[in-house]
Amino acid sequence: MKRFVVTLILGCLLIPVLSVHADEGMWTFDNPPLKQWKERYNFEPSKEWLDRVRLASVKFPGASGVFVSPNGLIATNHHVASGFIGRLSSKERDLLKNGFYAPTQAEELKVPDGNVSILESYDNVTERVHIAASSATSDADSAAKRTAEIAAIEKDCPAALQCEVVSLYSGGEYWLYRFKRYTDVRLVMAPEEQAAFFGGDYDNFVYPRHDLDITFVRAYENDKPASTPNYLKWSATGAPEGEFIIASGYPGSTARLLTVAQLAYQRDVGNPLQEKVWKARRKALEDYSKRSAEAARQANSGMRSFANSLKRLEGQQNGLLNPRNFAKKEAEEKDLRDKLAAKPELNKQYAPAWDAIAKAYAGMPAKANQLAFSSLTSSRLATIAQQIVSYHIEVPKPNGQRYAEYRDARLSGFKSALLSPAPIYPEMDEAALTAWLTEARKVLGVNDPFIRAALGDAEPAEVVGRAVRETKLIDPAARRALLEGSAAAVASSTDPMITLARRVEPVIRALREWHEKNIAAIETANGTRIAQARFSVYGKSMPPDANGHLRLVYGTVKGYEEDTTLVPYKTTFFGLYDRNLSFDNKFPFDLPQRFMDRRDKIDLATPLNFVYTADTIGGNSGSPVINRRGEVVGLNFDSNNQKLSNRYWFIEDAEGSRAVGVHSAGIIEALRKIYDANELVNELIGK
Amino acid sequence: MKRFVVTLILGCLLIPVLSVHADEGMWTFDNPPLKQWKERYNFEPSKEWLDRVRLASVKFPGASGVFVSPNGLIATNHHVASGFIGRLSSKERDLLKNGFYAPTQAEELKVPDGNVSILESYDNVTERVHIAASSATSDADSAAKRTAEIAAIEKDCPAALQCEVVSLYSGGEYWLYRFKRYTDVRLVMAPEEQAAFFGGDYDNFVYPRHDLDITFVRAYENDKPASTPNYLKWSATGAPEGEFIIASGYPGSTARLLTVAQLAYQRDVGNPLQEKVWKARRKALEDYSKRSAEAARQANSGMRSFANSLKRLEGQQNGLLNPRNFAKKEAEEKDLRDKLAAKPELNKQYAPAWDAIAKAYAGMPAKANQLAFSSLTSSRLATIAQQIVSYHIEVPKPNGQRYAEYRDARLSGFKSALLSPAPIYPEMDEAALTAWLTEARKVLGVNDPFIRAALGDAEPAEVVGRAVRETKLIDPAARRALLEGSAAAVASSTDPMITLARRVEPVIRALREWHEKNIAAIETANGTRIAQARFSVYGKSMPPDANGHLRLVYGTVKGYEEDTTLVPYKTTFFGLYDRNLSFDNKFPFDLPQRFMDRRDKIDLATPLNFVYTADTIGGNSGSPVINRRGEVVGLNFDSNNQKLSNRYWFIEDAEGSRAVGVHSAGIIEALRKIYDANELVNELIGK
Repeated sequence: MKRFVVTLILGCLLIPVLSVHADEGMWTFDNPPLKQWKERYNFEPSKEWLDRVRLASVKFPGASGVFVSPNGLIATNHHVASGFIGRLSSKERDLLKNGFYAPTQAEELKVPDGNVSILESYDNVTERVHIAASSATSDADSAAKRTAEIAAIEKDCPAALQCEVVSLYSGGEYWLYRFKRYTDVRLVMAPEEQAAFFGGDYDNFVYPRHDLDITFVRAYENDKPASTPNYLKWSATGAPEGEFIIASGYPGSTARLLTVAQLAYQRDVGNPLQEKVWKARRKALEDYSKRSAEAARQANSGMRSFANSLKRLEGQQNGLLNPRNFAKKEAEEKDLRDKLAAKPELNKQYAPAWDAIAKAYAGMPAKANQLAFSSLTSSRLATIAQQIVSYHIEVPKPNGQRYAEYRDARLSGFKSALLSPAPIYPEMDEAALTAWLTEARKVLGVNDPFIRAALGDAEPAEVVGRAVRETKLIDPAARRALLEGSAAAVASSTDPMITLARRVEPVIRALREWHEKNIAAIETANGTRIAQARFSVYGKSMPPDANGHLRLVYGTVKGYEEDTTLVPYKTTFFGLYDRNLSFDNKFPFDLPQRFMDRRDKIDLATPLNFVYTADTIGGNSGSPVINRRGEVVGLNFDSNNQKLSNRYWFIEDAEGSRAVGVHSAGIIEALRKIYDANELVNELIGK
Repeated sequence: MKRFVVTLILGCLLIPVLSVHADEGMWTFDNPPLKQWKERYNFEPSKEWLDRVRLASVKFPGASGVFVSPNGLIATNHHVASGFIGRLSSKERDLLKNGFYAPTQAEELKVPDGNVSILESYDNVTERVHIAASSATSDADSAAKRTAEIAAIEKDCPAALQCEVVSLYSGGEYWLYRFKRYTDVRLVMAPEEQAAFFGGDYDNFVYPRHDLDITFVRAYENDKPASTPNYLKWSATGAPEGEFIIASGYPGSTARLLTVAQLAYQRDVGNPLQEKVWKARRKALEDYSKRSAEAARQANSGMRSFANSLKRLEGQQNGLLNPRNFAKKEAEEKDLRDKLAAKPELNKQYAPAWDAIAKAYAGMPAKANQLAFSSLTSSRLATIAQQIVSYHIEVPKPNGQRYAEYRDARLSGFKSALLSPAPIYPEMDEAALTAWLTEARKVLGVNDPFIRAALGDAEPAEVVGRAVRETKLIDPAARRALLEGSAAAVASSTDPMITLARRVEPVIRALREWHEKNIAAIETANGTRIAQARFSVYGKSMPPDANGHLRLVYGTVKGYEEDTTLVPYKTTFFGLYDRNLSFDNKFPFDLPQRFMDRRDKIDLATPLNFVYTADTIGGNSGSPVINRRGEVVGLNFDSNNQKLSNRYWFIEDAEGSRAVGVHSAGIIEALRKIYDANELVNELIGK
């Protein structure tokens, strides 16, 4: 299998023949689309420009943010920081609902287990990983060797940093990313959720839009604001129509390099099943939320998250179900395979990869329900129990043989999350897990191994009720005792949540191993082959699929045509009040009282939201939108409906696909006139 | 054929089995949907309520309006009155562009040939027409006998009124309508076109919407404001969401009772051809408009009208091209024919009607281009010439044998239009007709009879250039001389526009006669049979197709769901300024300076436009939207895209089909705060 590496290197030297579309792609910092920028936008950033943007780009859990002052001030979206804000909220002090502002640093609130990071440095380790795997005797052996080598690379990490090897191009490349992590993050300013999420689920993935989806937090080090010289300057005016912009952030996941067989599985089985799972989990929270106002408060962020996921999934699935788009994907695959066929030697090596993946996926539908429903993740307490049980199984193993999340390089992050003092709501946990196990039993049947292990002959309410009532895991100290105690202590614990987790652990492990062996290993090995084939035919002309790591996207601030009329490139505060009053101030188009009281103070012509053609995806929330001078002209927070199926393929500008941001001028206007946050404004743009 | 009448009467006694959909239908005043109103809305209007609404409902050329004061004051849309306003405009005084307001009656401007009418009374004359036709020996003979009888009925008309026999249900019923006509109409108030038509063609048929599409005119009699005791009161507050409303007006044309064969012809031949014709005519005006600002002013209303027609046609055609909708229509026809088949005697009589129509339509495609392109109507001067030539051929005939437009009952209206002093723009006429004949020659070929007659071997520019340059018809006195002179004088006139009209007259006449005999007569006779069949099977449960005469539509003020979000039932002035500023005040989203200057004076929360479920169609523009107290809560001016294919079938509320009106409160706010039209406001709602 050594030829892989050789071909890869040769492939990189070929001249690209398939160029990407205008404004396509989520590009790594090691390979920014300099050619496109120069040719289309006459933009040639210096190394310093790129370094500064990289070091200012803040990674939140599953999302993005940006340093906007030299003193650790970070701007992100409200919906990105809502987990942080939720952990600072209680029945008595509902910061999500009522918003928050700390005029002084002393008043900033430390977020329990709040942490963010930046990408400090990176190195290409492709050769090391490929060579390690090249002596393998099978795909499974190759996977094991690769895993061990990656664990070894990750372990060799500077003390102050955290290391992770990330795979690009379905394993075509491997990179070592080193992160600087900030573990003391404090809340500076958050608007009311109703201002941040104005229009609620209805207006989600919709534009024109009027959301003040912002939050400011501050990174601290040694109890002092972190020194962050590589911050980006705030633009008080924002970007006019036609302006070239770049957004830097952490897009979560795309699936553009998948084979037709993989996409067809998503369309026919994966997405419908995912929808079923999320709908079941949302329904459990909805039912719970009806119990009381406090229950509704607790369930709110979960319900909102599922609503968001479901609406996005629907848009993505609509894309897959569009026969014209899918045919284009088939044509692309055919083009690659046809071109490959013209190179007999390469063809012999790579052509079987597509069939191997298709064959592996043929086995998925029969296992899909088990894989989806054999889980306790709907409950936070059960998840904690499961992690403690797994921890004592995994950690004794050699580093390279563990599940990725238990490798040495990740353990400190794992522990701080597990021991977080963030609030847990046992009643909600109980309701969610009971509903989940009831649904799982319905789907899997009473004789399914997971159901037997979890419930035996008992009812879900009985098993879960007792587990939640009697578990001690709500107390971080109890978790710590079990985590830091012996494996034997966990194995003999009578905490009923731990015993539940122990019973299901072998079932879940067996399913995970089945998937690793029969799907993941085959996908990776053959995905790598296809990546090589792609490099050989087209060169490295396409960016890799998004994977939750730092990327650059770019485009133009630009309106579009929809339903026979024009959609403007920006909205204004006039539009916010129009939409509020057009619905007679009814939920979810109601506004906080503050907005009513301050209406006459605001310059209503100030832009509030705006759109641009950049190729973002979920995870880019909170990404700074940057002009060529490196100034923040907005905070990315959403995509419109037209763009959602860009998970599977790039959606052309002409189809009206747009990313949506909060306008930098609108943020200043709101901070000043609605929130009296003059100190914050001063820190952003000076007095 | 006498059984027709008998069956009709029997049919009317049957209990309806096919009920119309919620809020479906454009109902005649003789048969308002009292049952639906009572059952769904608990609304039972008195005869006085209905009479008052009928007598307040003003018919404009092709559109609607309403008396809103006892002194002849009429409210309508700006786009309805734009023909009137255009006739009062000139290069020096562009009232379309700049708007107009007369604070006193003395300042009101008399519209050249401005006339409007109301439906004073009506009678059912179905039996008389059907009996006259019952002795016919063929469909063509039946048509002739019907025409003669209708002419006789129309001629017997009170002196002060104008009479017209209108056909309903494809000839299933005939009614004599008597109109009171106001021939002295004066302009009171018109906003700038850019306020009335804000968003231009882009926002046409689009909602949310922000158009101040209003104009006020006043009917005069004997040089004094007409006394109009049957006016409707203006509501200063308008209608809240959920309010039951009725709109009364003059919907132009629907085609819901057409057979599948007729609809298929529209879809496959008729509509595409219509599009071609309108696009050619629009292009001619566009090219002309580029010559100068004054040319653009002259061409504006024509270009706007074609843009409107084309956008509407596209929406209608999209409806026809939707296979699901078309299949529903086929299923409806099948249901009627199946039910008919269960009644052998009726079936024998009526069943052949569908095939007869289909057979007639089979001959249409071959003639369609000739029918569409053998015309001079793109030029006002040529149209005048053609009318003068035809007049002297038609009027000597017995009244019952003339073309409908030359019957005695219509002659006074015909003459006042022909002799109107409204401005004609010879350069535009020349450009339009030259382009038209060039296009017609391309489509029909140089050997086509119309092209031979119009051009011989000359070029269009040559023929038209000379005709426009040398004709005297631009002077109303010259027209009068020819009209009131002898047929011989017209036959020997050397006015080159008259000679052009004379040359093409026999060709156009032959085509019209071909169409009358081979299509129209067969359509009418068999349409009547199908109407009888429908009455026999379902009873008179459906309203007739619209035909430009007075109808009632009804529904609810109500928002809707679109593209995964909600669309509100109303917009506000906030929304107007948002849309203006979102597009940086660029055309067609720019606003008159007055709107900028007065922005801070306006209560921006005032509703501007609103939507409701009423089953309106083109011609309903200017219709008053009325609450159950008979007050005007708005002026209907448009439909959204979703509703456009309601020409062919009713579009369900669930699909988001809505009519769009200007809100009565928004009109008051604009009149007061933007136009200082306090006298007008006082006349509408008192001081």
